[in-house]
Amino acid sequence: MAKKPLNIGMIGYGFMGRAHSNAYRQVSQFFDLEYRPVLRAACARDANKVKAFADTWGYESTETDWRKLIARKDIDAIDVCTPNNVHREICEAAAAAGKIILCEKPLAMNGEEGRAMVAAVEAAKVPNIVWYNYRRVPAVTFAKQLIDSGKLGRVFHYRAKFLQDWTISPDLPQGGAGLWRLDVGAAGSGVTGDLLAHCIDTAIWLNGRIDSVSAMTETFVKQRPHTLTGKVEPVGIDDACAFLARFDNGSLATFESTRYARGHKALYTFEINGEHASIAWDLHDLHRLSWFDHRDEGPLRGWRSIHVTDGEHPYMNKWWVPGLQIGYEHTFTHQVADFLEGLATGKPAGPTFRDALDTQDVCDAVLASAKSQQWTPVAR
Amino acid sequence: MAKKPLNIGMIGYGFMGRAHSNAYRQVSQFFDLEYRPVLRAACARDANKVKAFADTWGYESTETDWRKLIARKDIDAIDVCTPNNVHREICEAAAAAGKIILCEKPLAMNGEEGRAMVAAVEAAKVPNIVWYNYRRVPAVTFAKQLIDSGKLGRVFHYRAKFLQDWTISPDLPQGGAGLWRLDVGAAGSGVTGDLLAHCIDTAIWLNGRIDSVSAMTETFVKQRPHTLTGKVEPVGIDDACAFLARFDNGSLATFESTRYARGHKALYTFEINGEHASIAWDLHDLHRLSWFDHRDEGPLRGWRSIHVTDGEHPYMNKWWVPGLQIGYEHTFTHQVADFLEGLATGKPAGPTFRDALDTQDVCDAVLASAKSQQWTPVAR
Amino acid sequence: MAKKPLNIGMIGYGFMGRAHSNAYRQVSQFFDLEYRPVLRAACARDANKVKAFADTWGYESTETDWRKLIARKDIDAIDVCTPNNVHREICEAAAAAGKIILCEKPLAMNGEEGRAMVAAVEAAKVPNIVWYNYRRVPAVTFAKQLIDSGKLGRVFHYRAKFLQDWTISPDLPQGGAGLWRLDVGAAGSGVTGDLLAHCIDTAIWLNGRIDSVSAMTETFVKQRPHTLTGKVEPVGIDDACAFLARFDNGSLATFESTRYARGHKALYTFEINGEHASIAWDLHDLHRLSWFDHRDEGPLRGWRSIHVTDGEHPYMNKWWVPGLQIGYEHTFTHQVADFLEGLATGKPAGPTFRDALDTQDVCDAVLASAKSQQWTPVAR
Amino acid sequence: MAKKPLNIGMIGYGFMGRAHSNAYRQVSQFFDLEYRPVLRAACARDANKVKAFADTWGYESTETDWRKLIARKDIDAIDVCTPNNVHREICEAAAAAGKIILCEKPLAMNGEEGRAMVAAVEAAKVPNIVWYNYRRVPAVTFAKQLIDSGKLGRVFHYRAKFLQDWTISPDLPQGGAGLWRLDVGAAGSGVTGDLLAHCIDTAIWLNGRIDSVSAMTETFVKQRPHTLTGKVEPVGIDDACAFLARFDNGSLATFESTRYARGHKALYTFEINGEHASIAWDLHDLHRLSWFDHRDEGPLRGWRSIHVTDGEHPYMNKWWVPGLQIGYEHTFTHQVADFLEGLATGKPAGPTFRDALDTQDVCDAVLASAKSQQWTPVAR
Repeated sequence: MAKKPLNIGMIGYGFMGRAHSNAYRQVSQFFDLEYRPVLRAACARDANKVKAFADTWGYESTETDWRKLIARKDIDAIDVCTPNNVHREICEAAAAAGKIILCEKPLAMNGEEGRAMVAAVEAAKVPNIVWYNYRRVPAVTFAKQLIDSGKLGRVFHYRAKFLQDWTISPDLPQGGAGLWRLDVGAAGSGVTGDLLAHCIDTAIWLNGRIDSVSAMTETFVKQRPHTLTGKVEPVGIDDACAFLARFDNGSLATFESTRYARGHKALYTFEINGEHASIAWDLHDLHRLSWFDHRDEGPLRGWRSIHVTDGEHPYMNKWWVPGLQIGYEHTFTHQVADFLEGLATGKPAGPTFRDALDTQDVCDAVLASAKSQQWTPVAR
Repeated sequence: MAKKPLNIGMIGYGFMGRAHSNAYRQVSQFFDLEYRPVLRAACARDANKVKAFADTWGYESTETDWRKLIARKDIDAIDVCTPNNVHREICEAAAAAGKIILCEKPLAMNGEEGRAMVAAVEAAKVPNIVWYNYRRVPAVTFAKQLIDSGKLGRVFHYRAKFLQDWTISPDLPQGGAGLWRLDVGAAGSGVTGDLLAHCIDTAIWLNGRIDSVSAMTETFVKQRPHTLTGKVEPVGIDDACAFLARFDNGSLATFESTRYARGHKALYTFEINGEHASIAWDLHDLHRLSWFDHRDEGPLRGWRSIHVTDGEHPYMNKWWVPGLQIGYEHTFTHQVADFLEGLATGKPAGPTFRDALDTQDVCDAVLASAKSQQWTPVAR
Repeated sequence: MAKKPLNIGMIGYGFMGRAHSNAYRQVSQFFDLEYRPVLRAACARDANKVKAFADTWGYESTETDWRKLIARKDIDAIDVCTPNNVHREICEAAAAAGKIILCEKPLAMNGEEGRAMVAAVEAAKVPNIVWYNYRRVPAVTFAKQLIDSGKLGRVFHYRAKFLQDWTISPDLPQGGAGLWRLDVGAAGSGVTGDLLAHCIDTAIWLNGRIDSVSAMTETFVKQRPHTLTGKVEPVGIDDACAFLARFDNGSLATFESTRYARGHKALYTFEINGEHASIAWDLHDLHRLSWFDHRDEGPLRGWRSIHVTDGEHPYMNKWWVPGLQIGYEHTFTHQVADFLEGLATGKPAGPTFRDALDTQDVCDAVLASAKSQQWTPVAR
Repeated sequence: MAKKPLNIGMIGYGFMGRAHSNAYRQVSQFFDLEYRPVLRAACARDANKVKAFADTWGYESTETDWRKLIARKDIDAIDVCTPNNVHREICEAAAAAGKIILCEKPLAMNGEEGRAMVAAVEAAKVPNIVWYNYRRVPAVTFAKQLIDSGKLGRVFHYRAKFLQDWTISPDLPQGGAGLWRLDVGAAGSGVTGDLLAHCIDTAIWLNGRIDSVSAMTETFVKQRPHTLTGKVEPVGIDDACAFLARFDNGSLATFESTRYARGHKALYTFEINGEHASIAWDLHDLHRLSWFDHRDEGPLRGWRSIHVTDGEHPYMNKWWVPGLQIGYEHTFTHQVADFLEGLATGKPAGPTFRDALDTQDVCDAVLASAKSQQWTPVAR
């Protein structure tokens, strides 16, 4: 208990507010770290709701104005869990106030905003990170280790998909709690910023930067009731997006995301084919990694299904014993652990705002290509 | 925060001490309950170690003598996470002191001990439960709902296995931290009490009582260094155990457990074949349930792999969104939630000591049959 | 044995020569048909080799000049198993001679050739078919039945891949027996004509015509020894090809093929996502079909793995009993059976040359798009 | 065509008559052997049916009395595809006539009959084999090679199951075409002789002889209409059978078979756990072998799914190319190929009658144990 406190001010109390709060509460029991998160304040416009949230999660106080939260001296770090369209404003203010920032993904509405945000945190020299949590699935981190070890050799192919099916009904409204993701004004884009951003972040982390893309998007349901206006309004987001890409390392890629793939709840998958070995992963069975190694004895070659739950696997010596899996929420705990470790060692954990800007730039190129129907280079 | 506190006194700080503590800490954020666990005291013989444990997990105080813990007025409930050979003594004392008891499985060293413990808690009228946590894997609870709904019709077959491979090396010692499970003096038996007990508890819960068994056991490594004596000692536990069984409902069963099944970490599986439908489950992918329904349209019949992560599935509306899995530790959280709910409603959650005695009796019959090489009826 | 003979003249004795011959030999034992194939003559330039082939497979005679074969009165049908670059010449001659034609896929080197071939067979009014054998995998035929039944509703997505890894080594030569597929002069293209053509044929059959595409291709190994010239020569084929597509029915698609996907031997997969249901299939487990139906009872929804081996499944009542799978070669037997049935009933089995021309046109658009880096409409 | 003919006389025209005939017809095209099967005569009591069968499969002549068939000089080998209760009589007569014998499994009604049959073929010195075809699934043969190579080390566990669900309906009659397997008079036993015999044959082949067993059997449907008597008759067969076993090599085993496992068509599975490695296989995906090797690099350990379709795999260089699977019927072709090879080399392919007697003895011990409810040693 002599550990250094890191006082958290949380903005937002939705799905991500819960996921982050759980991580802050759980990290110190499982990871031995110099810093210890303290849930100092939760902030949201609705005083009653934020009070209830704070009670449940053990936040010591509440605010209804995020500017007041940022102004508080007893807050070290701001966690931004708002819709995308206010990320920039909050982050710029927090940076100006010298606060550490943990921002939910995607970083911004677009690359232009993202650049401003990167400039802000770098000018203020505040530690910063974006919650691309899937990097910290143990199997995904293990994939990163395998790739960095050189075991794959030259990479030929990368393919990623993020398939869902929850918006097929035309009766589903846009806007409002949980549904702001269908409202282009709040979300900026549809599956591209929400789902493909995850795929792109992982891809850049594992396979390097993307050079150019050719994309197509579609909005299958053209209009939906809007919960704010009460009227049926045109739908501005992309329901589905697929794109071809070429990486800097010469490999070819296909990416696809949709909320119209019947039967898939949150099927984020990726596969990498290298000269010597291949890797595949799937969020629906996130504790497994598929591995094929051509250097195995000829007739015994086959895809291995690795149950990534051994003490030797990333993060897993902190949890239970081999065979006993962890889940989705632990990816956030790992991110907090790494972030706190980075604070202590001075080697910042990624993805920083700058790292996340690369993903934003790819998203922008994807949306531009879908519009222009041209191959589009990714801005650098 | 106006919720009623339930003051926990934890005995033991090993693997199960951590798993239970995590559940107590996490339950109130995810479940809306009348009672709220408070981590009042942790108890173990080693003062330094229990202090460190208490610091990590937020226990307010420590004890080094479990009798003192039980004597404390500020403790409502005793959680017993010791080796099996002291369960009885602690539970009898706790019952006599009027404490609520949450006892790690298996209930006892044998049925005789178990009967005494049941008598103790029932005489004292204290709420009691045994940590057969796998009942609360959402997919397993869902299996229970499906069976209770009558969808399977007459049951013909039950089969369960719990396969591990961690004791194959003859260099592994018996006794000591984490290895008391290999010491028959501390554990009472090997895989029968440790692993088959889980399979039997689930089986009885899902398919009713077991009438009789024919078993075989084997100790593959006959002697191992003992960490307490420092000498090579005969191994008294069963390394492997398999048995045939007949249930009261007329179905046939095979059960098997071993710690010598190379390639399996904690592969607890069961399958039930009914007249109309079948169910299968596997701890290595605990968030899935396999379901076959003969009433499906003929050519479309096939085993369904159900990703048990929807809001409609047991417990899952408390956690994240469809497709995002939870893990092993959540089974304990669910057990705490149900236990607290039972305290509030007066309808006790199972398995109570009495329920767990049935499992103990089957274990006894199994070990007796392995010794006598005879079909053996289960005591009632 | 009173059945009508259909006298076959086979050109070529390679892999496909064997596959087709086996089908002709096996079909009459399993299918009750009016026509019975008779292996009348095999033809190839190498007299010794074709003699050996004829001996093995039971062809009654041999020829070394395909023009002589076509000229023979005792031959009813010509089976074309040569490299792609001579399909046109042979087929035009065979049509002119009034022969039935069964041509290996792809139909032609390009759409222009294909159009001429369609004109030839239609002018001559000779029955004709192209060996896109994967339509007759029972699981794929079953998928077609499901789609035609309307069970999927509106289709949103189609995705197909054909992944191999056999050309990764740069030491592999181009040209020569079995390796003419790497020689652009003999093959016309690489994976596009060899592998994607299969994917496209199935896709059009299942989901209707493709409107436009955006493609990329890559040749990873730029030069290889050529077995004919004995020199290292530039590689002219596409090693990998991926494309985005829009179907006439409004659905979006991704297609990909490569011979550089380490770990995959012949992984042809497709998936279709409809409003109500989805289907997936995989050549590596060709006897299974994956099926998801949103109309299933909510919490019991899951992907079904249908073992397509029941008597109710397409073709399967001709073979063994439920659970016993057939394999690759049977797709050819099914095609022969359907073709013979079509001869008897006058309702020709597909894909006819005209059907196969659609696939050729998509391949042409794909290769053109890869070159121009533009979205490209498919010729009609 | 200069190959030595082996003139086959087939008795029976049911499921197995077809499977064997197909193998005889196909073997010479795919395997280069000194002998070539010639379908000389088919024999069955019903003259019309056997004529139709002979026409379809190309048998040159027919007989309606198996004694006449055996007496024919132009017949080299007798293939016995009758119900089990006439195996002995036919085989003894065929041996006495100096005929080669290929007998469908199980060898006999019981060990006593089997002993007499072994004596008969050994006295007559006629080549003989029993159709335990699953040994020749390439993946199973590969398993045998892996075990014989010593890669597994000491074996701890063997488990096998053969699960079906086709007799659950009580309306299904016993006796008659295809249903003689439900009639104890014709079959001798139920799942024990029909299905477990396969499991036992493979087990002995892979893991050596079985020392003793403890079994239970059950007849779930106690009476069924009999197609011969036209009356409802008691059912004499075992619907389900499970047994524990100890092998000579010290390993423990569980075996189970049933026709009441809803959802399983012909799910024959086995798994072997050795000190260093484990193997698993499943008839529903017969072209795959699961392999776990503890000697793999620690964090990369996982079960490999080997697609047993490479040229290096047993038998597979005779068929197609990697990734393209074969099916059930090919196991018979492989058995014919090996048998013919054995004739040529003088090293007989197994399982011979003597080999198959071991399986018969285990079946007898199983049925005896189920009756006596005692552990029962296997006769030697």
